[in-house]
Amino acid sequence: MKIKPLFDRVLLKLSTQENRTESGFMLPETAPNKPEIALVVAVGDGTNLDGKEIKMKVKVGDKVLFNRYNADEVKFDDTVYYILREIDILGVMDD
Amino acid sequence: MKIKPLFDRVLLKLSTQENRTESGFMLPETAPNKPEIALVVAVGDGTNLDGKEIKMKVKVGDKVLFNRYNADEVKFDDTVYYILREIDILGVMDD
Amino acid sequence: MKIKPLFDRVLLKLSTQENRTESGFMLPETAPNKPEIALVVAVGDGTNLDGKEIKMKVKVGDKVLFNRYNADEVKFDDTVYYILREIDILGVMDD
Amino acid sequence: MKIKPLFDRVLLKLSTQENRTESGFMLPETAPNKPEIALVVAVGDGTNLDGKEIKMKVKVGDKVLFNRYNADEVKFDDTVYYILREIDILGVMDD
Amino acid sequence: MKIKPLFDRVLLKLSTQENRTESGFMLPETAPNKPEIALVVAVGDGTNLDGKEIKMKVKVGDKVLFNRYNADEVKFDDTVYYILREIDILGVMDD
Amino acid sequence: MKIKPLFDRVLLKLSTQENRTESGFMLPETAPNKPEIALVVAVGDGTNLDGKEIKMKVKVGDKVLFNRYNADEVKFDDTVYYILREIDILGVMDD
Amino acid sequence: MKIKPLFDRVLLKLSTQENRTESGFMLPETAPNKPEIALVVAVGDGTNLDGKEIKMKVKVGDKVLFNRYNADEVKFDDTVYYILREIDILGVMDD
Repeated sequence: MKIKPLFDRVLLKLSTQENRTESGFMLPETAPNKPEIALVVAVGDGTNLDGKEIKMKVKVGDKVLFNRYNADEVKFDDTVYYILREIDILGVMDD
Repeated sequence: MKIKPLFDRVLLKLSTQENRTESGFMLPETAPNKPEIALVVAVGDGTNLDGKEIKMKVKVGDKVLFNRYNADEVKFDDTVYYILREIDILGVMDD
Repeated sequence: MKIKPLFDRVLLKLSTQENRTESGFMLPETAPNKPEIALVVAVGDGTNLDGKEIKMKVKVGDKVLFNRYNADEVKFDDTVYYILREIDILGVMDD
Repeated sequence: MKIKPLFDRVLLKLSTQENRTESGFMLPETAPNKPEIALVVAVGDGTNLDGKEIKMKVKVGDKVLFNRYNADEVKFDDTVYYILREIDILGVMDD
Repeated sequence: MKIKPLFDRVLLKLSTQENRTESGFMLPETAPNKPEIALVVAVGDGTNLDGKEIKMKVKVGDKVLFNRYNADEVKFDDTVYYILREIDILGVMDD
Repeated sequence: MKIKPLFDRVLLKLSTQENRTESGFMLPETAPNKPEIALVVAVGDGTNLDGKEIKMKVKVGDKVLFNRYNADEVKFDDTVYYILREIDILGVMDD
Repeated sequence: MKIKPLFDRVLLKLSTQENRTESGFMLPETAPNKPEIALVVAVGDGTNLDGKEIKMKVKVGDKVLFNRYNADEVKFDDTVYYILREIDILGVMDD
């Protein structure tokens, strides 16, 4: 069973190892309200409230920077997921 | 007697067993303000305030993820129902 | 003398017996800020602020679900009435 | 000297006898923040901020239901007047 | 040196004698946050943020009713002026 | 090195002598949150968020009336500058 | 690994030496909530929520004036970065 986000929402899977990368990127884990990195695991179809479909920018597999307080948190098989609107994703990590 | 939601609202039926699935999905029942799973039992026609009809994305029978604090709660025959706008539904559970 | 609601407003007549139906529907009377059932006794013409007329969805005689805190309360001959915008009506009771 | 309301505003004259009618209508005078009945004594031309003129729904002589906290209060020759936007008038009393 | 208001703003000159007229109009001088009468001494060109020019309704010489808390106050040669958006002017005094 | 304001912003240079003019204009220097006069030293191109270019009303050299709490303050070579949106400028001083 | 800002966001690299320039520009380092200078290191494509692409005004290499409280802060290899919407950048430093 999987979650299919509605409208322009994105489902993110938080993973602590995402916060340390080969090139040394490290997000402050103890600081509250700081952006974190997570993996995109599902995206909505981008439809807005007027029924217009807007192309989503992020895709499954992207690593993105986001703020936890802009997202709803759900747990599944001991993994933490976040659901948020794409507009609230700050940026995509570019390998 | 049934409730027919108006505009882009959706009527949800909360059921505690929905929060445990075969694949092990389990939402934290004790955490407040966390998303929950519920069953769609009725949907509005999607009309917005300008009289334009927007196709609803969810349908009766869908299991959806939503936040209780975005919904109005009503009780009927000892069952708890929630009414909320479709835009406030986070995602659809995909079997 | 009657009240004719303006714009997209609806006039509701609250009646305690509406909250118990043949099929057993019962709204929690003691809980504050919970939806209640009321009878539509008058509706506005649906005109919005731009002068555009939008067809009203509810009609006189409908039993509707609404939240008291979204409405203005007036008393007439010992009966309590509520005036609210149609968009704030949660749903229509379907016999 | 008279007050000509601007835009979509309406000038109301509050009169205590308006709150008792032949059919017995009585608004709770002691309750704060409850709707009251007043007489329309002047209306604006309905122009909105984009310069578009929208037809006003109420006219001089109408008795209307309104909330005092949505209006600005002025006194003239010991009479209390209220100025408010037409959209904030709840309804028109229909004799 | 004079002040030319920008956009849809209006410059008002407050004068205590404006609050007593031949017909006896008197605004409560001691009540805070009550409308006052002032003289229009300059008006903007009415342009809005999209560059569209909307015709101003008030003109130099008009006596208008306004609320001090919706306006910015400046002093010039011991006279108090107020600058506010035209939409915040409640009405024009009609002799 | 100079600051080029973005969008519809304007850069102002505050100068205490601007607040006393030949004709005697004097703004209350001790009162907080009162409008002040400043010199326009740079203006943005007026583009709005939709990419549409709106003609700016003020130009370099204008003396304008503005409120400090609507502006961002920067210091350069012991001079205080303010950056604010043009819509927040109350008026232009007309010699 | 680099951060690619989404929508109309801009990635800034804060550097303390940016706050002192040859011409003597100095921003108050101890004052909170005052604008600071930073280097643009990446820009989004400018797409807005309706899918319309708006040309970005700032480019990589620009020195810009911004307010820290309008931005999200991330750390990478001991450098502080800020992500904010372009509309929240006050101005571009012009050499």
